[in-house]
Amino acid sequence: MRTTDLVTPALVVDAAALEHNLATMAAALPGSKLRPHVKAHKTTALAARQRAAGHPGLTCATIREAEGLAAAGLASDLLLANEVVDARRLGALVAAGARVTLAVDSDETVDAAADGGVREVLIDINVGLPRCGCDPATAGALAARARRRGLDVRGVMGYEGHLMLERPREDRAERTAAAMALLLDAHADVGGEIVSGGGTGTYDLNTSVTEIQAGSYVLMDTAYGALDLPFRPALAIEATVISVNRGGWAVADCGLKALGMDHGDPAIDGHDVWFCSDEHVTFSGEPLPRVGDRIRVRPAHVDPTVAYHEWMHVVDGATVVETWAVDLRGW
Amino acid sequence: MRTTDLVTPALVVDAAALEHNLATMAAALPGSKLRPHVKAHKTTALAARQRAAGHPGLTCATIREAEGLAAAGLASDLLLANEVVDARRLGALVAAGARVTLAVDSDETVDAAADGGVREVLIDINVGLPRCGCDPATAGALAARARRRGLDVRGVMGYEGHLMLERPREDRAERTAAAMALLLDAHADVGGEIVSGGGTGTYDLNTSVTEIQAGSYVLMDTAYGALDLPFRPALAIEATVISVNRGGWAVADCGLKALGMDHGDPAIDGHDVWFCSDEHVTFSGEPLPRVGDRIRVRPAHVDPTVAYHEWMHVVDGATVVETWAVDLRGW
Repeated sequence: MRTTDLVTPALVVDAAALEHNLATMAAALPGSKLRPHVKAHKTTALAARQRAAGHPGLTCATIREAEGLAAAGLASDLLLANEVVDARRLGALVAAGARVTLAVDSDETVDAAADGGVREVLIDINVGLPRCGCDPATAGALAARARRRGLDVRGVMGYEGHLMLERPREDRAERTAAAMALLLDAHADVGGEIVSGGGTGTYDLNTSVTEIQAGSYVLMDTAYGALDLPFRPALAIEATVISVNRGGWAVADCGLKALGMDHGDPAIDGHDVWFCSDEHVTFSGEPLPRVGDRIRVRPAHVDPTVAYHEWMHVVDGATVVETWAVDLRGW
Repeated sequence: MRTTDLVTPALVVDAAALEHNLATMAAALPGSKLRPHVKAHKTTALAARQRAAGHPGLTCATIREAEGLAAAGLASDLLLANEVVDARRLGALVAAGARVTLAVDSDETVDAAADGGVREVLIDINVGLPRCGCDPATAGALAARARRRGLDVRGVMGYEGHLMLERPREDRAERTAAAMALLLDAHADVGGEIVSGGGTGTYDLNTSVTEIQAGSYVLMDTAYGALDLPFRPALAIEATVISVNRGGWAVADCGLKALGMDHGDPAIDGHDVWFCSDEHVTFSGEPLPRVGDRIRVRPAHVDPTVAYHEWMHVVDGATVVETWAVDLRGW
């Protein structure tokens, strides 16, 4: 099959860049040093490739991701790195033989884990990003509560998400070390063998944790592409040019319903993107393409882009090598 | 069923606001004066409600929307208000009995329509938004080409999308009239009975067209809510509070994969939204909710928000009245 046979807009992943990213990360963080985050791609087939690259554990953000991975036999060590107030669907996975560790940061989420049939937890520590995670000072007490509820506390996690795109690298390193000092203090109070954190932006800077939760590295986007990382842009949206105006612009069929927009407009190599509408991207730059031409649009943020698409096509130039279902979407 | 039984994040539509919006628009633009745009909701069941409100024709943005409406028996007069370079799937709908009119703005898209088996077109005119649509001066020649190719030219369309959110109302009216003057000039060269244009922001200001293509009116969002329109906010995302921090913020499970973000952050009544992450919204404001509470998040842009969700729940307070599949997603 050729990419020109794809209905557009279509998610395409460059096979060589994908292999490069998998291999580069596996060399830097082999085995359990990386717990790949599937939220970036929501694709069971790609999670299987990450396992095949040597990483036994996987990270999820939603219950549905955990369910899909378990159904595919990839749940020998799942971490749901997020809080839930109803853990019964996770408990059902555990009862069926999956190993699922759940993040908790409050009395309520500890109780939800225990009541729902989850057996293992990490204490989620706030390390500076105003989001989930308990105050480091309360981590020990929360771990004690979890143990009283019969939960096995495997350790701590803390995500320095506010530092992922920090530049220059030296500042990122310094601030990451400070954030991880909070996490290690909490770990001393909590115990357990796991200290989980990090992401694509700090995968080689965060040396405090026992495992890195990176996800974006495998596909990449223009935001991470602006950093000094060895991963290659693998993801794009194949689009069709549907209109060209003598006023000096062209329009392709890749719009707001095909692109995560929170990090801004996408990029089209060699052209200037003007704006996106629901089903369109308007752009300029000589030479303008012709109506019917295919172009590649590179998203600013991989995660919410992928979540719009049913299929991910692995391509080698204009040849479609494999087609994977983006099957872990929804909740 | 109660809304508390819904897995969150969940799209919810207030039944009373929905009925108000349907009735208000049907009173202002009865029958064929409105051709509701289904791109705003991508939900066949809601399109059926718009037909039941008296509007016989519907507007689509994608081939898949047209296919879904045809499969549901709602294709007695569909307009695909967008350009395509391969119309064979539309031709198949026409061959099966659907009436599908296709927008064209170039020789290539005229040829695609004819080659694909579409029989009726509108000449799409650029009226100021740098997107699709031909130069008004070339409209007559394009219509002639279409007729030579055996196509029935039903008239013209031109979308003044750049003016939808223009304020104050007087400026919006004045600029809309100027844009529509271009469309009417082109119509004089093209002929046909249809002059199609407009949207929710100009539904009562654009008096030049024979039909208005509004879509957002039925669900609304915070961007349109800032205008002086009689439509009520009907759409929200029901979310669960999963974390509350003593630092003064709370986190709910409604993030970038549940919200179109091109118009900015969503709103939570009575609270200040700080930022969204992939699966989270962080917000502040006294009193903070408690872990486990349900909240409603109102999106800034309805169309790309709906496109993330599998289901739309029509609710009356905390009671789920109906659940509709968002079945027209994808391409």
